[in-house]
Amino acid sequence: MPTPTAGKPLSVVVWGENRHEQLEPDVALRYPAGMHEAIAQGIRNQASQPVDVRTVTLDDPEQGLPVELLDATDVVVWWGHAAHGEVSDELVDRLHQRILAGMGLVVLHSGHWSKIFTRLMGTTCTLRWRSEHDREIVWTVHPTHPIAAGVPQPLIIEEQEMYGEFFDIPVPDELIFISSFSGGEVFRSGCTWTRGNGRVFYFSPGDQDFPVYHHEGVQRVIANGVLWAAPSDRPRVVPELLRYAQGEFVAGEDYAGPLRSAGQP
Amino acid sequence: MPTPTAGKPLSVVVWGENRHEQLEPDVALRYPAGMHEAIAQGIRNQASQPVDVRTVTLDDPEQGLPVELLDATDVVVWWGHAAHGEVSDELVDRLHQRILAGMGLVVLHSGHWSKIFTRLMGTTCTLRWRSEHDREIVWTVHPTHPIAAGVPQPLIIEEQEMYGEFFDIPVPDELIFISSFSGGEVFRSGCTWTRGNGRVFYFSPGDQDFPVYHHEGVQRVIANGVLWAAPSDRPRVVPELLRYAQGEFVAGEDYAGPLRSAGQP
Amino acid sequence: MPTPTAGKPLSVVVWGENRHEQLEPDVALRYPAGMHEAIAQGIRNQASQPVDVRTVTLDDPEQGLPVELLDATDVVVWWGHAAHGEVSDELVDRLHQRILAGMGLVVLHSGHWSKIFTRLMGTTCTLRWRSEHDREIVWTVHPTHPIAAGVPQPLIIEEQEMYGEFFDIPVPDELIFISSFSGGEVFRSGCTWTRGNGRVFYFSPGDQDFPVYHHEGVQRVIANGVLWAAPSDRPRVVPELLRYAQGEFVAGEDYAGPLRSAGQP
Amino acid sequence: MPTPTAGKPLSVVVWGENRHEQLEPDVALRYPAGMHEAIAQGIRNQASQPVDVRTVTLDDPEQGLPVELLDATDVVVWWGHAAHGEVSDELVDRLHQRILAGMGLVVLHSGHWSKIFTRLMGTTCTLRWRSEHDREIVWTVHPTHPIAAGVPQPLIIEEQEMYGEFFDIPVPDELIFISSFSGGEVFRSGCTWTRGNGRVFYFSPGDQDFPVYHHEGVQRVIANGVLWAAPSDRPRVVPELLRYAQGEFVAGEDYAGPLRSAGQP
Repeated sequence: MPTPTAGKPLSVVVWGENRHEQLEPDVALRYPAGMHEAIAQGIRNQASQPVDVRTVTLDDPEQGLPVELLDATDVVVWWGHAAHGEVSDELVDRLHQRILAGMGLVVLHSGHWSKIFTRLMGTTCTLRWRSEHDREIVWTVHPTHPIAAGVPQPLIIEEQEMYGEFFDIPVPDELIFISSFSGGEVFRSGCTWTRGNGRVFYFSPGDQDFPVYHHEGVQRVIANGVLWAAPSDRPRVVPELLRYAQGEFVAGEDYAGPLRSAGQP
Repeated sequence: MPTPTAGKPLSVVVWGENRHEQLEPDVALRYPAGMHEAIAQGIRNQASQPVDVRTVTLDDPEQGLPVELLDATDVVVWWGHAAHGEVSDELVDRLHQRILAGMGLVVLHSGHWSKIFTRLMGTTCTLRWRSEHDREIVWTVHPTHPIAAGVPQPLIIEEQEMYGEFFDIPVPDELIFISSFSGGEVFRSGCTWTRGNGRVFYFSPGDQDFPVYHHEGVQRVIANGVLWAAPSDRPRVVPELLRYAQGEFVAGEDYAGPLRSAGQP
Repeated sequence: MPTPTAGKPLSVVVWGENRHEQLEPDVALRYPAGMHEAIAQGIRNQASQPVDVRTVTLDDPEQGLPVELLDATDVVVWWGHAAHGEVSDELVDRLHQRILAGMGLVVLHSGHWSKIFTRLMGTTCTLRWRSEHDREIVWTVHPTHPIAAGVPQPLIIEEQEMYGEFFDIPVPDELIFISSFSGGEVFRSGCTWTRGNGRVFYFSPGDQDFPVYHHEGVQRVIANGVLWAAPSDRPRVVPELLRYAQGEFVAGEDYAGPLRSAGQP
Repeated sequence: MPTPTAGKPLSVVVWGENRHEQLEPDVALRYPAGMHEAIAQGIRNQASQPVDVRTVTLDDPEQGLPVELLDATDVVVWWGHAAHGEVSDELVDRLHQRILAGMGLVVLHSGHWSKIFTRLMGTTCTLRWRSEHDREIVWTVHPTHPIAAGVPQPLIIEEQEMYGEFFDIPVPDELIFISSFSGGEVFRSGCTWTRGNGRVFYFSPGDQDFPVYHHEGVQRVIANGVLWAAPSDRPRVVPELLRYAQGEFVAGEDYAGPLRSAGQP
């Protein structure tokens, strides 16, 4: 897989489902250019390093993420909700391979139930929820983490959908934020994992029914998450099963193993 | 999903691919009743609690794991290698759901590349390997873990296939064993994860070409792993996405969300 | 160090500071036999295995924990608050060595600032607090953990002191419970760590000003924690620095290294 | 505590015990300017960001780390072995407080038994060892970690002291490197932890009897570790226990609690 040239600004794509904005006038009022544009603008505003952020949507050709674009992308930010089922399995395969090879992924809010996130996690990624104007308070529990840099302690979101535990995810590699809600629920709202050579950050605040992506603190977290998820400058390669002779540590031989011969990755 | 009656011996099924034993005379000599029977006998020998262990194989009806059997099973032990691709996706779905609901899974050796393990992990689960009579030394690095109880420090396997890093798995919840090989490679050989309400243990020693499953220390680790992976006595339920009203913490309402309406779990 | 005989009931000592009960009539009314007795009774009520629970207090001879008693003890449960500074450094050394050798430790509530807990953690163990009748809701985020077995989801404590993040502890090995409070704070209220061959569980609910230790769910968590922290049946030995010759894996030679020669452990 | 001005090069101090170099001619030959200078030069050579590296030694005034210097330092790198016992408890207290407030610490090789490392860990930090020209092979098991950037897979050290498991440390937050040795031992050779607002990295390769600190790959790891351990630009403050009124999330009131009144931190 091609490795985007180092030294350039980080290449970021915000993928937006863009359905609520088309179907619900109040969402369109809240996010006149679409939620994806609000998210993208927040990253541009808050990133502490040069970033080149573009947006694509589900209804774009090839669902917004053709091979050429993915090959030139460092980090994908994902917002989906009502149309998870429409995202093609082929696109999910393509994304999965890119992430295993080193591309970063930032999954927002209702993206917890997206095909790409559940595939990476191996769990149901279910949770408890309620959309009734709860106040969400986001507490940093990992203060040395770069994703927490410059984030107020606590970060207060006046109105937001409630997401509560048990959140069925694998134990996070790093738990950065825990949220409380007016109703008394809690949620592991900022979590990281690695998968292959890639990094995944999930952040739950943000919803179509509330202006959360205009909140400066939320923007800062997402921007930090994008920079954290950025790949290193090593070549992007999906890990492979290789045979190494005794005393040979660097050059492995390929192996057409049973799974592959059966047409699997 | 039914919950096996508490108070009974733990119900364990060893699933064996049983192909090498049929095709390669030296394997048949090494494991006259099949590798699955050697694994099952080791669990019976070494388990510190009552266990009821049976074996099934890929060529049994419904690939050995019909619904009724899975519904009565606490822990599945998985050994596969040459025929991962033949395991039906339907069986993998069934296993996945049972594990998320609380059934335990112990994956052995070449099972690292099985469909069920890669699905649970979300990564390629690839590694480096060489089958050339390396000595493997298994070191306990988590001495308080119940899977390490009664296991010699170190556990020495005179001849074994080499499995080496980088092993493309998610960061384990618990890293219990690290192995070295004569050639200088290392491997995270004993790892645990949770997925939903279920527990997963991976242990790498064991191969068709070496008599590793007759090794008492290896048997002890597998028996410990089976007991560790056993479900609690709570009802077995796959985690669900439910709506909870303000002030209501226990009774959630079902939600026919976008993914489900699109025919997904 | 002696290893308590296996096969006997687990030997548990609840250490209580027992000062608030002597000085404040309302605490004495709430806990007529002392908080330590309420904690001990809760363990007896809720433990799913045979336990032999006794109580000792700060004002007992040798501050309640003479060598002979510690040598016969499997798990110590610690409640202290107003008199952390009075606990002798010698007792803390003794406890520390026993824990490194395999004895379990369960630290409750204000014990977060005890000498033994801060020594084991290496951090300040500070937090934010308020004693104003907040409702605490304890959510299980690690449902397969034995400490969560039989604990209601959520566990609701009508009135309790608030403990909030940032809680300055090392990242827990396992995060089992997260609490919310009426005021909107959150807290990692149930955490585990290992130290040497010993296990440590911290659980924050429980206070002199509220009848929390009479709460059945709280009792269940503490009883589960005691069983989880119990040592295995291997000999109790503090890990040592030993020299091993090439090819010798079991018998190490002692080494009077620089630290030890300077009078250190 | 003062916060070093942002925008300047990272301020790094390499602390060297500098005794072997004085007492053993072969060590002096191997490291003519002292091991600390070799370590410092390696960081200068390999750091991917501007660093200002100075060296101090145990026999300098105030054991090399007066308050003014520590207040201006971002990261301390520690090499000690024969004289751990001579480091004053007052200096260890001072270091500990700085680290909890955000200063980074990189501990090398025999520093595993230093007072500051054992204090931060809460364990014995013992291990098995042998100084007999084993070959050490360092394998990366966390390829997305910045400390692994640019490090060969594997990193081979032709001759080195053997350090083996069980290494009595708390479970690392991140396990980056695992080493094997000719004799068959393994070791968790690169580990990170957080303590308070500070970051700690331990890396085991490096010894007075072998020219390990002249190895480019080893230098790269240490330089990466220094950059990783660097504090963020927030004010450096040791976490405190503060009371927060209901609805007040930012301004806490100080509390002269029991431990502090007894003269403890």
